[in-house]
Amino acid sequence: MPGFAPKNPDYRAVATATFDSQQAMRTLGISIERLAPGEIELAMPYRADLTQQNGFIHAGIITAALDSACGIAAFTLMPADSDILTVEFKTNLLAPAKGQRFAFRASVVKPGRTLTVCEAQAFAWHDDAETLIATMTGTLIALTRREPAKPQPEPRAAG
Amino acid sequence: MPGFAPKNPDYRAVATATFDSQQAMRTLGISIERLAPGEIELAMPYRADLTQQNGFIHAGIITAALDSACGIAAFTLMPADSDILTVEFKTNLLAPAKGQRFAFRASVVKPGRTLTVCEAQAFAWHDDAETLIATMTGTLIALTRREPAKPQPEPRAAG
Amino acid sequence: MPGFAPKNPDYRAVATATFDSQQAMRTLGISIERLAPGEIELAMPYRADLTQQNGFIHAGIITAALDSACGIAAFTLMPADSDILTVEFKTNLLAPAKGQRFAFRASVVKPGRTLTVCEAQAFAWHDDAETLIATMTGTLIALTRREPAKPQPEPRAAG
Amino acid sequence: MPGFAPKNPDYRAVATATFDSQQAMRTLGISIERLAPGEIELAMPYRADLTQQNGFIHAGIITAALDSACGIAAFTLMPADSDILTVEFKTNLLAPAKGQRFAFRASVVKPGRTLTVCEAQAFAWHDDAETLIATMTGTLIALTRREPAKPQPEPRAAG
Repeated sequence: MPGFAPKNPDYRAVATATFDSQQAMRTLGISIERLAPGEIELAMPYRADLTQQNGFIHAGIITAALDSACGIAAFTLMPADSDILTVEFKTNLLAPAKGQRFAFRASVVKPGRTLTVCEAQAFAWHDDAETLIATMTGTLIALTRREPAKPQPEPRAAG
Repeated sequence: MPGFAPKNPDYRAVATATFDSQQAMRTLGISIERLAPGEIELAMPYRADLTQQNGFIHAGIITAALDSACGIAAFTLMPADSDILTVEFKTNLLAPAKGQRFAFRASVVKPGRTLTVCEAQAFAWHDDAETLIATMTGTLIALTRREPAKPQPEPRAAG
Repeated sequence: MPGFAPKNPDYRAVATATFDSQQAMRTLGISIERLAPGEIELAMPYRADLTQQNGFIHAGIITAALDSACGIAAFTLMPADSDILTVEFKTNLLAPAKGQRFAFRASVVKPGRTLTVCEAQAFAWHDDAETLIATMTGTLIALTRREPAKPQPEPRAAG
Repeated sequence: MPGFAPKNPDYRAVATATFDSQQAMRTLGISIERLAPGEIELAMPYRADLTQQNGFIHAGIITAALDSACGIAAFTLMPADSDILTVEFKTNLLAPAKGQRFAFRASVVKPGRTLTVCEAQAFAWHDDAETLIATMTGTLIALTRREPAKPQPEPRAAG
């Protein structure tokens, strides 16, 4: 899905700032590895405190990373002063989330003024081998930001 | 979907132990509120460190709770010495995850020897009002546990 | 999900007309059995020419009925002069679509100005027993109708 | 997802026979355009009797084609004497199904002994332009065929 042209020339700064303001990503140890218009890759190291009963990373944590990846990939193509929310997503778990680190790659399949559809894949790195462990298809909605992204000028006293 | 009969008389102990061994649930502050054959309710307080860019709980965290709820609900109906993995799920986000605490209710729609389908709902409690914020439909697969859940007694010498 | 108040007093006529203008429904032999604000039931007899390789109704045909059910259920709650399109849906097939006739019940889970989320169930009737065979969760989008639903009266000559 | 090796040397004949025995495909005018291990392309001409209220092909019909495409793609990788059923799928409708003809391409993402996950895309051809109109992710389950696909040869008398 190549060659999306961002509407917001500051897309990189805005998308990065949005990701950085997702405290959940910091708590889960997830960071941006690569960012381009309509595309992103996130990275996460293994952490025992994020596992399910077999010692694999919990499917919900994998999904949290895939969801943020889809959201930020979609966000890079939205106009300035947009906000973004997830409408829905579907995750297929293909293999146990077993590895030293994980990569999450999302790309926009269909950008839209209101709705954007993204696809994402999660990969586990175990020693030097990469395994596809999960896929996501997600729908995101663009909202007009109710509060401005930047501080407003002081209201002037009337008269 | 009333009246499922558990195949494992110890379903409550085994399901609780499985939930307790999901370190991700402890990390996210999620606990079992209520458990019955084919049904569960989980609870989670609001935590600022699990939010997305607007201060709502991250959709992935909501999904992690819904996924564990589906998994444990399905697990209560499986035979002893089963293990369970999530095959896939789909989450619709209906309203912002905004509240002091959250409840996650899952129930089995169709139990099966191999595959079990569950539905779950997430609710936000804000002051004393409950709002439906998300739904999940999930498919779980039963596996035969490769290693015993508890240490086995030493085999006795015959005679 | 009781007690939705339709915004369009003519909801019944408009929803029925929309369903009737879906030629695919006529081709597949699907009809409205019951309609209420935010709710619908469709009916379909078994037809050998709509089966898959085992003689069960094809999952895609079941899905077509569930999708129309969700769409019309959502449509009953939309303002006059709306049009509706499906954004996405997910179907779980729980049991073979084997029976003399089939019922499809959809209800709105979350109505919205732009997006509406519905859930639906498909049932097979075999002799006098009803079996749940499939579920759908779907997202629908309301559009403002670009062309009027009915032919406009000829403009009269002024004077 | 290249280079799947079919377990059944007769995969082409068996997959084609399975598709041909789906009467729904014949009724909807859908045919196989191309078949390879783990991959398929189906074709369908526009038909007014398969449309929704705006004259586009009904989302359920698009889904029926995508589902059969996923099923047959998965089936090419299964052992002889398997049968296949759809567990679940999710469809995103990206653009109106408007065109003279439609193509449906499915490929296996993760083959498995029990479960296989496929992805598929639907394209509309309008004049000479191809538009991506829908995507599907689907999960299929392999079953052991209860009755043999072909009459078995008579067992020979030993000696």
